[in-house]
Amino acid sequence: MESLPLTKAFTLIEPGPVILVTTNDGRKDNVMTLTWSMVLDFAASFAITTGPWNHSFAALCETRECVLSIPTVDLIDTAVGIGTCSGCDTDKFAKFGLTRAKGERVRAPLIKECLANIECRVVDLIERHNIIVLEGVAAWFDSARKEQRLIHAVGDGTFIVDGRTIDRKAMMRSKLPDGL
Amino acid sequence: MESLPLTKAFTLIEPGPVILVTTNDGRKDNVMTLTWSMVLDFAASFAITTGPWNHSFAALCETRECVLSIPTVDLIDTAVGIGTCSGCDTDKFAKFGLTRAKGERVRAPLIKECLANIECRVVDLIERHNIIVLEGVAAWFDSARKEQRLIHAVGDGTFIVDGRTIDRKAMMRSKLPDGL
Repeated sequence: MESLPLTKAFTLIEPGPVILVTTNDGRKDNVMTLTWSMVLDFAASFAITTGPWNHSFAALCETRECVLSIPTVDLIDTAVGIGTCSGCDTDKFAKFGLTRAKGERVRAPLIKECLANIECRVVDLIERHNIIVLEGVAAWFDSARKEQRLIHAVGDGTFIVDGRTIDRKAMMRSKLPDGL
Repeated sequence: MESLPLTKAFTLIEPGPVILVTTNDGRKDNVMTLTWSMVLDFAASFAITTGPWNHSFAALCETRECVLSIPTVDLIDTAVGIGTCSGCDTDKFAKFGLTRAKGERVRAPLIKECLANIECRVVDLIERHNIIVLEGVAAWFDSARKEQRLIHAVGDGTFIVDGRTIDRKAMMRSKLPDGL
């Protein structure tokens, strides 16, 4: 994985993919599947919806750190599997054969099998809506990876795989931040 | 368009599609393109990122109402066009030939050309993060529509079209709300 400029990190989240969120509570790593996320700003600021019903929530609140890892379609059963068991009784890294890599800025691990990883700090917790606000502090992308199609959860147990790409860069020039 | 149970409305937003947001400020209708949104709850609760830089923001704050309309891939140039001009000097409904329909619970119009429409009330405004929290109060779906593929903005001027669907309902049974 090579370093990705933080100014491009929002392009990993804006399409609305299924995300894996890793944490480290000081004793062990955990990972959860997340399908409710959004971009807050071009400058690597994100919101996720989570709460006490997720085992990872305690580690997120205590350590104020996590990694957003972006799986591709070949990892669909890994993503669904991670989302249907709990870190309270399962070592999900072992169970799903995930390879950890050390992050640069946070203790939560990167996942080598994923297309991209964004190291994040928790900057705010909006408890009344179960929103956590994250700031990306480092980002990584595996451009050598052959499979790059992301998956989108519908919420009813089905998932949509990325199809073709349409280019409207010329039409959107005035709206894009510099350097994209 | 037929009525869609509000308990299913989150499945329109969870995949992360490009959205059109309509408002009515008491004098005229407006519409903007939105690519930063997320689900907050199965019960038709959503967050969007927007702020004073969007002309629609004032109407959203004053009327505390909007409609989230979901366009399909055949409307990509409409969505990009709406996102690259402003309601301050343009009647976007006229310019893009959009057909309005009357909502049941809000004054902002539904867009007939879209696959689905969710009438929403603004329930909270989190100014420090430019987050608006919405509650869906009625939802509509055009199941007769042939083209149902959504589009996902990457943020760099390219868009991903929905590809194939993968079914993992059996694996996810324990995590899905009743009735989905």
